[in-house]
Amino acid sequence: MHVGFIGLGAMGRAMAGRLVAAGHQVTVWNRSPEPVAELVKQGARPADGIAEVLRSDVVVSMLANDAAVESLLLDEDALAAATTDLHVNMATISPALAKRAAELHGKHGIGYVAAPVLGRPEAAAGGNLNILAAGSDALLDRAAPLFDAMGRHTYRLGEQPQLANVAKVSANFMLFSAVEAFAEAATLAEASGLAPADLLEVLTGSIFPGPIYSGYGSMIVAGRYEPAAFKLALALKDVNLALDTAADAKVPLPLGSLLRDALLESIAHGDGERDGAAIAETARRHANLTERRS
Amino acid sequence: MHVGFIGLGAMGRAMAGRLVAAGHQVTVWNRSPEPVAELVKQGARPADGIAEVLRSDVVVSMLANDAAVESLLLDEDALAAATTDLHVNMATISPALAKRAAELHGKHGIGYVAAPVLGRPEAAAGGNLNILAAGSDALLDRAAPLFDAMGRHTYRLGEQPQLANVAKVSANFMLFSAVEAFAEAATLAEASGLAPADLLEVLTGSIFPGPIYSGYGSMIVAGRYEPAAFKLALALKDVNLALDTAADAKVPLPLGSLLRDALLESIAHGDGERDGAAIAETARRHANLTERRS
Amino acid sequence: MHVGFIGLGAMGRAMAGRLVAAGHQVTVWNRSPEPVAELVKQGARPADGIAEVLRSDVVVSMLANDAAVESLLLDEDALAAATTDLHVNMATISPALAKRAAELHGKHGIGYVAAPVLGRPEAAAGGNLNILAAGSDALLDRAAPLFDAMGRHTYRLGEQPQLANVAKVSANFMLFSAVEAFAEAATLAEASGLAPADLLEVLTGSIFPGPIYSGYGSMIVAGRYEPAAFKLALALKDVNLALDTAADAKVPLPLGSLLRDALLESIAHGDGERDGAAIAETARRHANLTERRS
Amino acid sequence: MHVGFIGLGAMGRAMAGRLVAAGHQVTVWNRSPEPVAELVKQGARPADGIAEVLRSDVVVSMLANDAAVESLLLDEDALAAATTDLHVNMATISPALAKRAAELHGKHGIGYVAAPVLGRPEAAAGGNLNILAAGSDALLDRAAPLFDAMGRHTYRLGEQPQLANVAKVSANFMLFSAVEAFAEAATLAEASGLAPADLLEVLTGSIFPGPIYSGYGSMIVAGRYEPAAFKLALALKDVNLALDTAADAKVPLPLGSLLRDALLESIAHGDGERDGAAIAETARRHANLTERRS
Repeated sequence: MHVGFIGLGAMGRAMAGRLVAAGHQVTVWNRSPEPVAELVKQGARPADGIAEVLRSDVVVSMLANDAAVESLLLDEDALAAATTDLHVNMATISPALAKRAAELHGKHGIGYVAAPVLGRPEAAAGGNLNILAAGSDALLDRAAPLFDAMGRHTYRLGEQPQLANVAKVSANFMLFSAVEAFAEAATLAEASGLAPADLLEVLTGSIFPGPIYSGYGSMIVAGRYEPAAFKLALALKDVNLALDTAADAKVPLPLGSLLRDALLESIAHGDGERDGAAIAETARRHANLTERRS
Repeated sequence: MHVGFIGLGAMGRAMAGRLVAAGHQVTVWNRSPEPVAELVKQGARPADGIAEVLRSDVVVSMLANDAAVESLLLDEDALAAATTDLHVNMATISPALAKRAAELHGKHGIGYVAAPVLGRPEAAAGGNLNILAAGSDALLDRAAPLFDAMGRHTYRLGEQPQLANVAKVSANFMLFSAVEAFAEAATLAEASGLAPADLLEVLTGSIFPGPIYSGYGSMIVAGRYEPAAFKLALALKDVNLALDTAADAKVPLPLGSLLRDALLESIAHGDGERDGAAIAETARRHANLTERRS
Repeated sequence: MHVGFIGLGAMGRAMAGRLVAAGHQVTVWNRSPEPVAELVKQGARPADGIAEVLRSDVVVSMLANDAAVESLLLDEDALAAATTDLHVNMATISPALAKRAAELHGKHGIGYVAAPVLGRPEAAAGGNLNILAAGSDALLDRAAPLFDAMGRHTYRLGEQPQLANVAKVSANFMLFSAVEAFAEAATLAEASGLAPADLLEVLTGSIFPGPIYSGYGSMIVAGRYEPAAFKLALALKDVNLALDTAADAKVPLPLGSLLRDALLESIAHGDGERDGAAIAETARRHANLTERRS
Repeated sequence: MHVGFIGLGAMGRAMAGRLVAAGHQVTVWNRSPEPVAELVKQGARPADGIAEVLRSDVVVSMLANDAAVESLLLDEDALAAATTDLHVNMATISPALAKRAAELHGKHGIGYVAAPVLGRPEAAAGGNLNILAAGSDALLDRAAPLFDAMGRHTYRLGEQPQLANVAKVSANFMLFSAVEAFAEAATLAEASGLAPADLLEVLTGSIFPGPIYSGYGSMIVAGRYEPAAFKLALALKDVNLALDTAADAKVPLPLGSLLRDALLESIAHGDGERDGAAIAETARRHANLTERRS
């Protein structure tokens, strides 16, 4: 299949690489040139501009946020000139924008699939992403070979594309809820004389297996938040997405509100560029724990 | 080893049965007679009273709460008359009471180990509990054969017995934090058109494996909270234990406060005897979701 | 002074009427014609359009929200054509927009004063508003006769116009915080057997005099939220203004988050068009109080 | 009337003084002797012990908390020997204890009135307390001359004594809710460039008159929390009273939970002995405001 790929950040680069490796003909575009050069070395073709990418059989995009999607891909003129018949948007964007994007693509006769992913760059490089996909069955069938090259499993979440974004937003909300819960528990433990590392070992060995508790938990126990795998400022962006999506549906989200307040406090204390696990420092500050005993 | 066992509730019964099956000589006592008869059939000996149990080599207790432990086992006269030299208290009690119990036992020359567990009655019956143990190494070594008969793994959490209770209280706090997080996410999903069952499948298949999300999540998705595996009223008891332990250590626990408010609301709506997963109905009520689409 | 007045809602109408009554020559504009007719009867002159109003000595505006101010008054062409040298914006808008408005006016050589008010339409009709004003002293001096006609007191809050909006946003946040506090206390009282009306009488007669507790409190005690003096949906708008302003300054606002969640719940239950005092019904629902005893 | 008075703390001393000044024959008792000497100088008689006080026509008590009331005045033997027929308990205690006290007094044929007060020692000295009274009308009539000597107004809140304590607990909860609201608003203002003192002036001059906002607000604006008029540790005690009373009635109190967390944080930072207004420092710390601009 001739695939156009837009957005070669840490995730997009690894995902496009998987498509090339699977034998697809991939044309890539990125705002900055370095990642393009990297993909070309792997066998991709560079595009002159987005217009060229939009002439591929299928377009896959992995941009940073709503604003980037809106300015680069929801341009009426660009869509009118596009000859592709399927756009698979894998970015983490708001359900509201996904809905609007689907309608706009439909108006121009282009199929639209939302397929945000769960997983970090290493998982993307290994083809081990979990792909949350929504759109018509026919379109999902068409995209299936691409998903198979990039992920370990594809979840089909319904005909309306934005439902995949609802799932992604919910998952990220739960991720940081789990981090906050461990942060509070670790602070309670530490202030009561129990080493947070001991608590973490108990939890991950028993009721809380899986990558979230062990991954974020280790950073919290060590008080080491660099390098950032998931920047705290982006965690705030995602929690705000959850709160906005909930507000649109008239749903109070008290745990989301609590996360937002804690993340704002973290940013006020200079942790915006550190890993989101640094939210744990708010709980420690509230309890006036100054020296760390791990 | 000659083991005395006090407290044959759903958990204690299964644990005492494991000790009998492992070849220990077990003398049992319980407030009501039925579970005693059951254990006797399996090969245990019935005790005339607690005094008799306290003459075993090692005493294991699994009582319901602080009040039961206090009235039955922290009696100065009973402890003075006891000839046992080790009491292994496996109940979920407050760290504050555990600390007092350890001091009182010490005064009477009796070793004290705290060893609360993670796991449900089925896990206890299969010898698959996770045991959170704290006390001196010598005492933990002595109790090790018993732990091996009852659990799949024993975590040693330090010399001070109450640290095991801190771990247990923290774990239960995190358990209900996870339930609340999924409850809010499921409500956000449902109100946005995504089936909570689809969200749960994504989560348990990707970032949140393990028994908590799948077990409680299934109940929430189905809106079925009976039979209760962990009663909501007991969840409130445990969250209050966490809040009290935190307050003793001057630690604010905002997520614990949020859980307490939600659990109180659940009880006001008549859910105290249903499973703790019913806390999810508060989020649905707040969003005015009346008919369930699972 | 020749005054142009834009925005004749319930508040604007009463304020413009005060200016006419004080002997100023007032030219008025409003999107719908009825309030214009009413003011003309009182002695104002109708304007053909906003452009005409912007040729007055001083322009006073009292529009509904950020969007209205942005579309009607921050138009570059309109400002370029304006001959007025002072715009007094009395609407409740975001500090961020006020800052931008001040800069834009400055660019076109027009003075800008922010002067939102505290008080309801009755207070406006009686000239009893509290006016929160900010801008350069010279401009505030120029506007003083207008303020004197409309208010009982003018607070000068600094040279930067947006500071007046910060004060207004903070005041409205505190207003609904007080309402929520009484709502919770009244629920606690009612569920404990004390009539909320008795509690209100104690509070307003002792530590909480003033219009907020007695006004909102009476509605809550009676469970009567119509007619709406301050619509609940607008209360949510204002709380969101406070949260956004706080987020811009990296300030967590936990009470603001709590209010937002409660207001969203109220809207989910159909109370958006009732008075903001209806937020109290969330506390009653949480406690499962169904029949009212006042 | 022959009045016995128990408990001569800052409040009790002033209140007993008012009774002496009004011409009543007052017998006083206090744990420490100095305040007794002071009252004797004013014309009171010292009692040998509590038993003697309990032989007065009417006994008024003003003790520190539940524990003091329980140990000194709910002793079965003391009540059996008492010849008084009315006990007016003016302390801030839990409604649950008040209920139990009323029953116990009834069993011994002694009337019981709950009459906690709103007001500080200066108000007590001037006879300007607000008295929240509950009990049978006949008993309230008997106590009326005493209330008239001590307060500016007596509110009658029903036949069941504990209702007065519900009112008092609710009032103190609202008091600290107002303090927290201003603390957050002042932080929002300060971080946005508006002097908290300016915000306070606006609020107290317009929608929030009365002693709470001006009194606590001034301390917050100045960042001066000593001397303490109402110690922060006692504020936590009172908020816990509200939370416990609410829990007994199955009422979630989210604002109460928020206050509890903030007060615990304050205590963790060493502010327990400063005035409760110091809760405001938590909001400032969360926003990382270090230098004060008032």
